Amino acid sequence: MPDKSLRLALLDQARPRPVMLAIAGDSAAGKTTLTRGLTEALGPDRCLSICADDYHRYDREERRDLPFTPLHPDCNHIDILEQHLQLLALGRPILKPNYDHATGTFTRPTYVEPTEFIVVEGLHPLATKLSRACFDVTVFLDPPEAIRHQWKIERDCTKRGYERDQVTAELERREPESAAYIRPQRRWADIVARFAPISGRDDPPGTPLSAELLLRPTIQHPSLADVLPEDRTDTADSAMHLKIIRDADGTPTDCLHVHGHASDEEARQLEKAIWAELDVPGGPPDSLGRIGPDQRSEPLAITQLILLFHLLAARAGRGTP
Amino acid sequence: MPDKSLRLALLDQARPRPVMLAIAGDSAAGKTTLTRGLTEALGPDRCLSICADDYHRYDREERRDLPFTPLHPDCNHIDILEQHLQLLALGRPILKPNYDHATGTFTRPTYVEPTEFIVVEGLHPLATKLSRACFDVTVFLDPPEAIRHQWKIERDCTKRGYERDQVTAELERREPESAAYIRPQRRWADIVARFAPISGRDDPPGTPLSAELLLRPTIQHPSLADVLPEDRTDTADSAMHLKIIRDADGTPTDCLHVHGHASDEEARQLEKAIWAELDVPGGPPDSLGRIGPDQRSEPLAITQLILLFHLLAARAGRGTP
Repeated sequence: MPDKSLRLALLDQARPRPVMLAIAGDSAAGKTTLTRGLTEALGPDRCLSICADDYHRYDREERRDLPFTPLHPDCNHIDILEQHLQLLALGRPILKPNYDHATGTFTRPTYVEPTEFIVVEGLHPLATKLSRACFDVTVFLDPPEAIRHQWKIERDCTKRGYERDQVTAELERREPESAAYIRPQRRWADIVARFAPISGRDDPPGTPLSAELLLRPTIQHPSLADVLPEDRTDTADSAMHLKIIRDADGTPTDCLHVHGHASDEEARQLEKAIWAELDVPGGPPDSLGRIGPDQRSEPLAITQLILLFHLLAARAGRGTP
Repeated sequence: MPDKSLRLALLDQARPRPVMLAIAGDSAAGKTTLTRGLTEALGPDRCLSICADDYHRYDREERRDLPFTPLHPDCNHIDILEQHLQLLALGRPILKPNYDHATGTFTRPTYVEPTEFIVVEGLHPLATKLSRACFDVTVFLDPPEAIRHQWKIERDCTKRGYERDQVTAELERREPESAAYIRPQRRWADIVARFAPISGRDDPPGTPLSAELLLRPTIQHPSLADVLPEDRTDTADSAMHLKIIRDADGTPTDCLHVHGHASDEEARQLEKAIWAELDVPGGPPDSLGRIGPDQRSEPLAITQLILLFHLLAARAGRGTP
């Protein structure tokens, strides 16, 4: 009877388990940009990123005749994604499928061995209870729809071979499924990040978007209250605020604002304070906050640094491999 | 901490578990022919077959520069095969890779849900302890090398786009790895099947090959001794023999010979007796023994029937799904 040995094998606890981070959000919500800074900071030997779009069930051709879009769970191998997340979380390799966005087809799968850290970004990483159980930290990206539409049009026309009208029509077609299947994942995130311009300000062109970060009490965040005391950050003009607000369900939650016009100096001070809470030599990596060849966003850098804090803290809490 | 829910999820015992059969053997040993009769007998809704060649690690192009052949475990994703066998044995779906022998490349993976019976044929299904633990019944195909070489030349030249000289050179190149990695699996099989002509006989052309089946006491075989009493089968002229012999390690083992010149009538009698031991209505399926559009081999039919017996007996022993 195979039961016993199978049980032992699948649960071999001797393998080092990676720290896993989920970055969920709708198409073009900024998942890849957020992920890139983290994987570059940690380096490819320590951190790999997985795009859940690889778990699409149908290629572009097949999707033309379907009554739903890739946002629908039935359009994806949600159960296989769940299985692969479990295997990775247990320190086991997977044979990962590959979806090529440039051609809209599936290519040869890739053998993936878990590294110390794994970032999984996609449309549905928080959709099932079991998927959520695989992650140490979960993020939901929640930009204003107008900004996201603009990002999607830019990206899909330049990198995925679509026309502008096609993208606009697709966004409209996707809206009900976004409401039904993507946005509900917001409630399962430890951190909800919203990058947006600040209304009422007249910042010069090229000013990065501000970040509004909901830091939920589901995990232990760095103690920002010491660096950003409420009496100081309560002034409307300050570039960084920390406030306690009530979440949708009434739970008290920290909300951090980092404005796009935050000065380098202000940002560095906060970054240093976050870094100091980790028992790690050196300082925050330079790759954080990069949004173009020569462009840097302090709000993005601080968001990424908070995620990096959580990754390293989870690693430390687990003991070295 | 994810541990607990992962444990529960991967070992969910509520799912019906398929009966699994391994057919191991070298390239062109007859694995596909043996498998086909079984899957046709049970039908695609009840039985799926998986070819472990899909777990090759390198495509044909990449293999040109490698110091080993597909017979080497390192040339295959043995750990992923092992993982997929476990998942299937636990009743879970897999996303199976696909290797296209016609082009020598990897194509889009296939979502595979377990059926009642699963036949896994390949070069290494018995190579690791954990793989073996997944199977209810294991077979090793062990034809004489001369016959296998002839089969491989025929197949690779007609179906896989190779030239005869290439196949001969490849067979020579593969010999050390066949000795090191394929043939040792013979010892892990419940049944070792050898299809070969009988030496010293002058059967007319077109006579099917005879089968010599080692029926090891690692599983409970149908009681053939009642149908083939030793005093009757001991005569050299009989078309079917059952003898107790000593296996390589000294263990007493049944050895069944079914000669290629066995008459329909003799064969049917044995088939009826095997079938009668199963509590299943009807009789042996017609698809057994087919080796061509209009050609039937009684030795193959009886081999397949014994395997079918084991599949159905394992199913019955486990209770209906």
